[in-house]
Amino acid sequence: MTDRGAAMYAEVMTVPAPQPVAPTERALLDVVFGQVWTRPGLSRRDRRFITLACVAAADAEGPLREHVYAALRSGDLSITEIQEAALHFAVYSGWPKASRLNMMIDEQWARIHAERGTPVPPPEPLLPLPTPSDPEARLATGEQAFIDVNCLPFVPTRDNPYSGAGILNFVFGEVWLRPGLGRRERRLLTVACVGFQDAPYPIMSHVYAALRSRDLSFDEMDELILQFAAYYGWAKAATLQAVAHEQQQRVRQELSGQDFAVPK
Amino acid sequence: MTDRGAAMYAEVMTVPAPQPVAPTERALLDVVFGQVWTRPGLSRRDRRFITLACVAAADAEGPLREHVYAALRSGDLSITEIQEAALHFAVYSGWPKASRLNMMIDEQWARIHAERGTPVPPPEPLLPLPTPSDPEARLATGEQAFIDVNCLPFVPTRDNPYSGAGILNFVFGEVWLRPGLGRRERRLLTVACVGFQDAPYPIMSHVYAALRSRDLSFDEMDELILQFAAYYGWAKAATLQAVAHEQQQRVRQELSGQDFAVPK
Amino acid sequence: MTDRGAAMYAEVMTVPAPQPVAPTERALLDVVFGQVWTRPGLSRRDRRFITLACVAAADAEGPLREHVYAALRSGDLSITEIQEAALHFAVYSGWPKASRLNMMIDEQWARIHAERGTPVPPPEPLLPLPTPSDPEARLATGEQAFIDVNCLPFVPTRDNPYSGAGILNFVFGEVWLRPGLGRRERRLLTVACVGFQDAPYPIMSHVYAALRSRDLSFDEMDELILQFAAYYGWAKAATLQAVAHEQQQRVRQELSGQDFAVPK
Repeated sequence: MTDRGAAMYAEVMTVPAPQPVAPTERALLDVVFGQVWTRPGLSRRDRRFITLACVAAADAEGPLREHVYAALRSGDLSITEIQEAALHFAVYSGWPKASRLNMMIDEQWARIHAERGTPVPPPEPLLPLPTPSDPEARLATGEQAFIDVNCLPFVPTRDNPYSGAGILNFVFGEVWLRPGLGRRERRLLTVACVGFQDAPYPIMSHVYAALRSRDLSFDEMDELILQFAAYYGWAKAATLQAVAHEQQQRVRQELSGQDFAVPK
Repeated sequence: MTDRGAAMYAEVMTVPAPQPVAPTERALLDVVFGQVWTRPGLSRRDRRFITLACVAAADAEGPLREHVYAALRSGDLSITEIQEAALHFAVYSGWPKASRLNMMIDEQWARIHAERGTPVPPPEPLLPLPTPSDPEARLATGEQAFIDVNCLPFVPTRDNPYSGAGILNFVFGEVWLRPGLGRRERRLLTVACVGFQDAPYPIMSHVYAALRSRDLSFDEMDELILQFAAYYGWAKAATLQAVAHEQQQRVRQELSGQDFAVPK
Repeated sequence: MTDRGAAMYAEVMTVPAPQPVAPTERALLDVVFGQVWTRPGLSRRDRRFITLACVAAADAEGPLREHVYAALRSGDLSITEIQEAALHFAVYSGWPKASRLNMMIDEQWARIHAERGTPVPPPEPLLPLPTPSDPEARLATGEQAFIDVNCLPFVPTRDNPYSGAGILNFVFGEVWLRPGLGRRERRLLTVACVGFQDAPYPIMSHVYAALRSRDLSFDEMDELILQFAAYYGWAKAATLQAVAHEQQQRVRQELSGQDFAVPK
């Protein structure tokens, strides 16, 4: 079993697996790499978004370095995608942890180029921003994105700092609309983030929206939760899974009237 | 001992202390209320910002409800201040936990007015925003605020989603500049948030800036850390305290050439 | 494999295993119950302290309820021990999460007695406290306990709120000395808590002290970390394991001169 895990480790991490000594190290190879990363249902690239969110949230210096390095070196994520993921992660996990992730990305990107003996390419310019500058237009854009992303028929009030200046003006008025990362990838990151952040309503609403939008199939959500369980533990994963069951049921009912096939 | 704690509990929480049964409940009264909240060095109002950040981060439903209720009912925080604190908290701890805090604020604000038999006053309008709409001007504003708040002579690159679209455009280009909450209060929230977020560089930089700006005295920082220890545990507090010692030393040296008294 | 996991689930949780539907639920039975809880090296009772700390920290309502119920119903932990564990947890994880744990303990203790049709026995009286009330004597007691528990030759300053009022006066001057829970059990809880709290120095110092004091053998520490990995994820567990390797090496050197056998 460890052989299979060691082979998958080398494939995912882009370096040979270390010789396991402690039970945890052996189980990491046997279970996490041998039995989770090897599963169908989500691509290796998909699993990286979930894993990056978890190791960044856990403040695990070693795993964070190794997974950022592997995500870039494997070519599974472009520098633009992983940098965009750091911004998205900042929104859902807080700026301090995201700052560390962002610094690690720069560091590992430089390391990879040093190893290749090539110069680090210049960054893409921030401006022009893809979203309106006018506050009124920006809030309107944020309201529409809030409806589209959350699959909800209403929007929160503008006249509250959190929901107005934060949610409508920035989170949905800008971040979710940025071109650097697709909506499906943002779903993978967001569900992982609400999973470790614990707040019940965001867990429910983002699991629901990911399923209802069909950005993630029911099976993909279940796979996401298993990947999350490996990197953030069974306690939080159990909560996420219980919510997923409820929301799969809810979405099944909402979509059952439609003539296209109900997601398995 | 418990009498003093029970009296302080009633003063802070605005309701009588429950009769302690378990060791944790008695220690909460004896230690947290009897020996921490009663200390000089930080006002009760100051301690609320630290405590609100901790209970919101801990996702502990009961304590979150009680502390939000008490902060508003006591009049220590206005609705504008606590709502602004929720936005600031969102930036430093992530939107999902902040969403829960924000919902709790609305709920408890309604409860307080129901208890008083008075209608909930209308919210303050979000617009006009206090900061420039033009992206270029907004980034320039964010760069200046970054320098002022962090007490640093440089700014991060604009051409990175996290530092450009996030840090300069929103965190410093808008949130820190909003009038709803003073910079000192934002320091109390931020240091508590970086304390539980764990990322080393943000802890160092925000503890440094809070001291270097003299928004918090050395003694106030030490008190902040004790309050934090009570509500987020001694493990993370140990890190915060170790960093505070280093940064107090650093600030002492940087300020020693100046003719005004060095903070004790 | 699932059969073995289901059998172990029933034994640990004191209720039949639910039928697994999602991959995470199947893996919980196969891996967590089938391959972790079944291991020798730590008793089921030992594993409960680690698991309770993890589920309480994760704020996972369902698992927290089920593990508190099972710990008490199985008789593995007495009500006195689990309540004492809640106090110890409060110190290392903060009051908000601990208050939730404490409420859950009361709730499940009542539930168990309701199921048995017996009245809830009266709680044990807190007083007299096992430690001196005279502040000077109390600090001296705390300093000695700090040395004994941490296996360090020095003590922190009294003249700092965190280390004086917090660490010496309360954490070591009282909590670690309380009779309700043994020092070994407190080690299991503490290492799990510093593990998810992430603070580097406390992780190092508590892993070291647990090994140096010989309260936990090297193999028991490795088992603790595997149990932790299951409930708090591989990211944080990897950090804990890396520190454990270093500290095992350090302790091996420190003890090698002694005539009693060096722990394996």
